[in-house]
Amino acid sequence: MFNKILIANRGEIALRIIRTCKEMGIKTVAVYSTADQSSLHVRFADEAVCIGPPASKDSYLKVPNLIAAAEITNADAIHPGYGFLSENADFSRICAEHDIKFIGASPEMINSMGDKASAKDTMKAAGVPVVPGSDGLLESAEQGKKLAVEIGYPVIIKATAGGGGRGMRIIKSDEEFENAWNSATAEAEAAFGNAGMYMEKFVVEPRHVEIQIAGDQSGKACHLSERDCSIQRRHQKLVEETPSPIMTPELREEMGMAAVRAAEAIGYEGVGTVEFLVDKYNKFYFMEMNTRIQVEHPITEEVTDFDLIKEQIKIAAGIAISGQNYTPNLYSMECRINAEDPAKGFRPSPGKITNLHIPGGHGVRVDSHIYAGYEIPPFYDSMIAKLIVTAQTREETLVRMKRALQEFVIEGIKTTIPFHIKLMDDENFKAGNFTTAFLDDFDFSDL
Amino acid sequence: MFNKILIANRGEIALRIIRTCKEMGIKTVAVYSTADQSSLHVRFADEAVCIGPPASKDSYLKVPNLIAAAEITNADAIHPGYGFLSENADFSRICAEHDIKFIGASPEMINSMGDKASAKDTMKAAGVPVVPGSDGLLESAEQGKKLAVEIGYPVIIKATAGGGGRGMRIIKSDEEFENAWNSATAEAEAAFGNAGMYMEKFVVEPRHVEIQIAGDQSGKACHLSERDCSIQRRHQKLVEETPSPIMTPELREEMGMAAVRAAEAIGYEGVGTVEFLVDKYNKFYFMEMNTRIQVEHPITEEVTDFDLIKEQIKIAAGIAISGQNYTPNLYSMECRINAEDPAKGFRPSPGKITNLHIPGGHGVRVDSHIYAGYEIPPFYDSMIAKLIVTAQTREETLVRMKRALQEFVIEGIKTTIPFHIKLMDDENFKAGNFTTAFLDDFDFSDL
Repeated sequence: MFNKILIANRGEIALRIIRTCKEMGIKTVAVYSTADQSSLHVRFADEAVCIGPPASKDSYLKVPNLIAAAEITNADAIHPGYGFLSENADFSRICAEHDIKFIGASPEMINSMGDKASAKDTMKAAGVPVVPGSDGLLESAEQGKKLAVEIGYPVIIKATAGGGGRGMRIIKSDEEFENAWNSATAEAEAAFGNAGMYMEKFVVEPRHVEIQIAGDQSGKACHLSERDCSIQRRHQKLVEETPSPIMTPELREEMGMAAVRAAEAIGYEGVGTVEFLVDKYNKFYFMEMNTRIQVEHPITEEVTDFDLIKEQIKIAAGIAISGQNYTPNLYSMECRINAEDPAKGFRPSPGKITNLHIPGGHGVRVDSHIYAGYEIPPFYDSMIAKLIVTAQTREETLVRMKRALQEFVIEGIKTTIPFHIKLMDDENFKAGNFTTAFLDDFDFSDL
Repeated sequence: MFNKILIANRGEIALRIIRTCKEMGIKTVAVYSTADQSSLHVRFADEAVCIGPPASKDSYLKVPNLIAAAEITNADAIHPGYGFLSENADFSRICAEHDIKFIGASPEMINSMGDKASAKDTMKAAGVPVVPGSDGLLESAEQGKKLAVEIGYPVIIKATAGGGGRGMRIIKSDEEFENAWNSATAEAEAAFGNAGMYMEKFVVEPRHVEIQIAGDQSGKACHLSERDCSIQRRHQKLVEETPSPIMTPELREEMGMAAVRAAEAIGYEGVGTVEFLVDKYNKFYFMEMNTRIQVEHPITEEVTDFDLIKEQIKIAAGIAISGQNYTPNLYSMECRINAEDPAKGFRPSPGKITNLHIPGGHGVRVDSHIYAGYEIPPFYDSMIAKLIVTAQTREETLVRMKRALQEFVIEGIKTTIPFHIKLMDDENFKAGNFTTAFLDDFDFSDL
């Protein structure tokens, strides 16, 4: 087992990793920018090294400084957390070159999953469902029409040079095809000087459902069931829950085994997440694989009793996993508490926390690095706490979450708490009836 | 179900009850003395009524004020918490007379368990093991000697008029009997003018193990397994855990069923606790029954996923319990964080909390009413927080507890945290090797 782990991150995830290291008897090194001097991860680590000025590129993303900090403190491993360098193949490689164990994926693994096109091919070959579509560019409207019938309407055609929705059309039937094709190619030609188009099946009313997996050196993987992360605002997850309200034992078995196949196909070592889109007919399609710990990992911990950071460290140290797939028997939900003003387009709201009360009691877990008097720096991610609530049913989880949110007092800044409270009372949300587009129509004006 | 519950208590348990009421959609009324105006239970309840000056006898124990507060606010039930009036038969009766449901035991039930001698008789009749001994006074040394052989050495003889250890002898064998008897009776005669003696089996190296039970109107009861509360200082529990390190499935079945028999024998309605002494041979003896929620109830909640306050309220509202007995599949431990100086004989240490950080993360629950800036009044119980930690094994629970204790920052006053940290490193404690006398030999001087 490692003697000392350097944590190349900040905020709640740095504290989260320190907690598990303490429980495992492993020494910790915190790193911090000058903006984070009074941060709790600095206080609770065994050692702390300043790695640069506030800007991430000069501190938390500055590889030479991190490597130097690890060498000075004699750390034998680096945990990257999420974000920053957690999926940076170069950093993974450089750690290895300095004989420091990177607690995450190998450079090859990160690269293979980082390139979306090749990742899709790999998954397809492993028998993991991917969104069907054209292999590269379509040659003509006729070829497109034929393929659309093959993969089934609705389809979406996209300009290869496109962006911002231009040169893009959702097509629902044969009758619409010709017109849509002509206007999209014309638009693409005009906007980008390139009329090249490709096609994908359009996933109707999708939910974001991801499977937590773990794989070890033996090449064996297992899954720890799913998380539903459909409540997103501009692709930013705000609420996650497990089990997914749409989940059935059959679908979990299918998706879980697809995720295990995905992991085993690339000989995945570590904990990771296979993200899927699930359509209204419960058909699921591979989206991407994250080769790191996820922000929302605690809800899986709550329902499986696993410590995922501990599993991550154990796998990195060469310890085999149990290989057993887990089915949750509790409900757990996470609300991300951000220093943002939800009534004003989720505008960041850094500043000093003048008053704080953290909720507690049965089924309530809080992962956070804030304290009364803490000054939230404006330089980093605005997430300041994760409120995780667990109960025997989804209904109980929702009322407990609302109770805990109402108890959460953070004064001095704006937070997403009012949004979450309103969400807990939303009839569609309560009914589990939502897709990734749910927040598009949500009224934030009265928050 | 009740519309509104008045909570006749303060501190963490008042907050604890408010939490469950919120989750059940029941309105709450807090009561407070003038010393508790800025307490969180006042802030989080729907309504709050001042019931008197700081002294408990003029506020939290003042029945007319509590009844008046309930009538003014139209509360249809009163939850007494623990301590104060929770086991006061008069209060239970007066509530009933005012058509307010007392969420606790009936006056008859409280009285029958409050009188220790009659409680013992009732339990004996129900087939619950009690500490064997003489029926009343012994007539002679000969009769005593005969009984001692019958119930087995060691025995303890006690002066009926005694106290403070005088006129009391532990006798380990026939040979010792005559001398011990003579000196004890002489001492009792001299000290109290009364040489009357009675005898009990002396429970060797006892542990305090209690069974959580629940019974409903149908007369049916069930148990939710045990809590080991042997870590006590002057009969004050400091640490509780479940399962007990000495527990076996057979012993749990035996003790659990004895507790269920105890509850059913008196037609017990509500949640309650049957306390036993367990000797070094795993023989157990009824000590007493508590007809209220216990301070240490959260550890049972953590391993069974039950909300015991919710069960209490449901039973009071006439809803039947499931009747199923529960076996824990996790470990949970509670450390009582008191505003006391453990290095100075646990002397109370009230005052202002200048700085606070509550521990968090996986498996950590905190039930507390304190916040940064809170002034702990000197008038009440010194417990300010309960730190409850849960994990898959006892070993993991201990390291997680130590981690959480080290993370718990309470500045401005002295607390029992340093004692608990030292305890988590104690070899005998770690081995589960302790009795109720464990802290008698504990070195508190370096805390």
